[in-house]
Amino acid sequence: MAGLLVMPELRIDPIIGRRVYIAEDRAGRPSDYGIHEATGRVAPVGESSPKAHPNCPFCAGNEIHTPVASATVADGAGRWQIRVVPNKYPAFRLDEVQDGAFGVHEVIIESPEHLLDVTQLGPTRLVEVVRMYRDRLRHWAAQPGLRHGLVFKNSGCDAGASLEHIHSQVTALPYVLPTVQLELDAAGRFYAAHQQCIFCDLIESELAVNQRIVSDHQGYVTLCPIAPRQPYEMWLLPRMHQSRFDLLTDAEVEELAGALQETLSRLQTAEPGCPYNLLLHTAPFDDAHAAAYHWHWEIVPRIAHEAGLEWGGGVHICPLSPEKAATRLLTAKKN
Amino acid sequence: MAGLLVMPELRIDPIIGRRVYIAEDRAGRPSDYGIHEATGRVAPVGESSPKAHPNCPFCAGNEIHTPVASATVADGAGRWQIRVVPNKYPAFRLDEVQDGAFGVHEVIIESPEHLLDVTQLGPTRLVEVVRMYRDRLRHWAAQPGLRHGLVFKNSGCDAGASLEHIHSQVTALPYVLPTVQLELDAAGRFYAAHQQCIFCDLIESELAVNQRIVSDHQGYVTLCPIAPRQPYEMWLLPRMHQSRFDLLTDAEVEELAGALQETLSRLQTAEPGCPYNLLLHTAPFDDAHAAAYHWHWEIVPRIAHEAGLEWGGGVHICPLSPEKAATRLLTAKKN
Repeated sequence: MAGLLVMPELRIDPIIGRRVYIAEDRAGRPSDYGIHEATGRVAPVGESSPKAHPNCPFCAGNEIHTPVASATVADGAGRWQIRVVPNKYPAFRLDEVQDGAFGVHEVIIESPEHLLDVTQLGPTRLVEVVRMYRDRLRHWAAQPGLRHGLVFKNSGCDAGASLEHIHSQVTALPYVLPTVQLELDAAGRFYAAHQQCIFCDLIESELAVNQRIVSDHQGYVTLCPIAPRQPYEMWLLPRMHQSRFDLLTDAEVEELAGALQETLSRLQTAEPGCPYNLLLHTAPFDDAHAAAYHWHWEIVPRIAHEAGLEWGGGVHICPLSPEKAATRLLTAKKN
Repeated sequence: MAGLLVMPELRIDPIIGRRVYIAEDRAGRPSDYGIHEATGRVAPVGESSPKAHPNCPFCAGNEIHTPVASATVADGAGRWQIRVVPNKYPAFRLDEVQDGAFGVHEVIIESPEHLLDVTQLGPTRLVEVVRMYRDRLRHWAAQPGLRHGLVFKNSGCDAGASLEHIHSQVTALPYVLPTVQLELDAAGRFYAAHQQCIFCDLIESELAVNQRIVSDHQGYVTLCPIAPRQPYEMWLLPRMHQSRFDLLTDAEVEELAGALQETLSRLQTAEPGCPYNLLLHTAPFDDAHAAAYHWHWEIVPRIAHEAGLEWGGGVHICPLSPEKAATRLLTAKKN
């Protein structure tokens, strides 16, 4: 056994300094629990199921089970294809000034049919979904009292989804989200020292090293970050500097949808049924960070359990190196 | 439905400023996945199973499947009762200077028989286990190059355990763990402003308010923190100021074991089989934080799924208020 040991390795995230130990041997440890970290399917997503489900509140025909839509996209016959509703079980509320839980919490239902993965939409419909992400943020950016927005998708039970029908969530809050604040602080320091965006610098050096690049075309780069929290973690960034997702043009939205389709398809091919979170990191609704910050998506598979080291220590253990992950994602055939 | 809505509420942790939204309505939302947040048993722990399991590497008789012990506690007949071994699948290594993954990663096997919850040990044997936590930290604190230690227990699959046989882990690293560093910074600022420990201040005000206290006797206080990440989250703190767990006396260890037994038993009674992480927060291996910092255990049940808001935004949603949690834990009959 000792001869086969792969040494653990400390990686430090170049943006926020997060510490991750790459410990590939841990993937081989015994388990009493039947599921195995870093080997795959742990949630019932991935299969197509296009017929309406009678009990699914997100399927066409069941609109009575969700609040009145705040926005929709319809097809030529007037049937909704995308439907945005206030979250029926919100964490924040626009009328909640008293207790400080003020904020927006919306659900974007991404298809009228009971699809289980957003890549099943195909390129044209995915463009509409991504445009809706932008439009909702644009809408909330113009409202008083809101400073920052987040779009996120929980796909699969282990990623925190309670319903399988494809959907995303939009939040807008009166403060900068802590996760992005950490990046803004780091990017601000880097900019002060180098007069350059730290993410532009990262993209340049990752393209030069070329060990963790998953895709690079049509204006977007997908890479496996050097200090991933999870196997197959990916970041998708616009190649040209841009700080706010809500300022994207229609042409940029279209290219981005293509890049997202490719990236998520590669993940589903490499790890079929893999639960994941899709997380938008974008600058606050002002121009203060225009030069220093660079919006991006983080795609975080939820394969490895977060345990005592993560919760108690704030350090992460990842059982798959980003170099191996990138190689596997590159060779995964696109849908 | 609308008449029954409980308004979400923003809570801010008084130590590190963590933002948590208490959103109790979310516990009632529909789910496709069969399990339900905040209602209970999601991992196969909690039943007694005292006979040895042939495939369990931690059971007596199977010592060949683990490395040579670095420490043991034996009974009168010389049979081991507690066995400390280097983690066979470590995240850190003492010989790993080159790649920076330098550190200690040990497993404390807490019983020779196949027990599934540490409360099954009973008070006397639990004292020995807690003493071993202290002794391992004490040992590593005296070694060169190590600055900080963490003791943690992953109990149940959803808390990140791979084996069910009761065990904890000890790590020691050449830097201060980020989670504790955040608290040290906050405690340092508070001390500079008030010449008092922020945790002593918290204990005093929580005892005065008396809405979130779970237990208070024999030198230890257990409370539900005002901004919990998970339902039934508890902190167990020494009532008298003390910064380093590794400096505990034998008498203090004995009282602490009693408090841990009570606290964990209450959790298992309120939420049978609940997976949890037991996390020690203690000052680094020096005296720099002796006046400002206060060691404590954090007991974090792993009931609610961490999703996009937590991973992408750094804010938490908790579907049970700490006031209700404390009431339920108080009325849960002790084992």
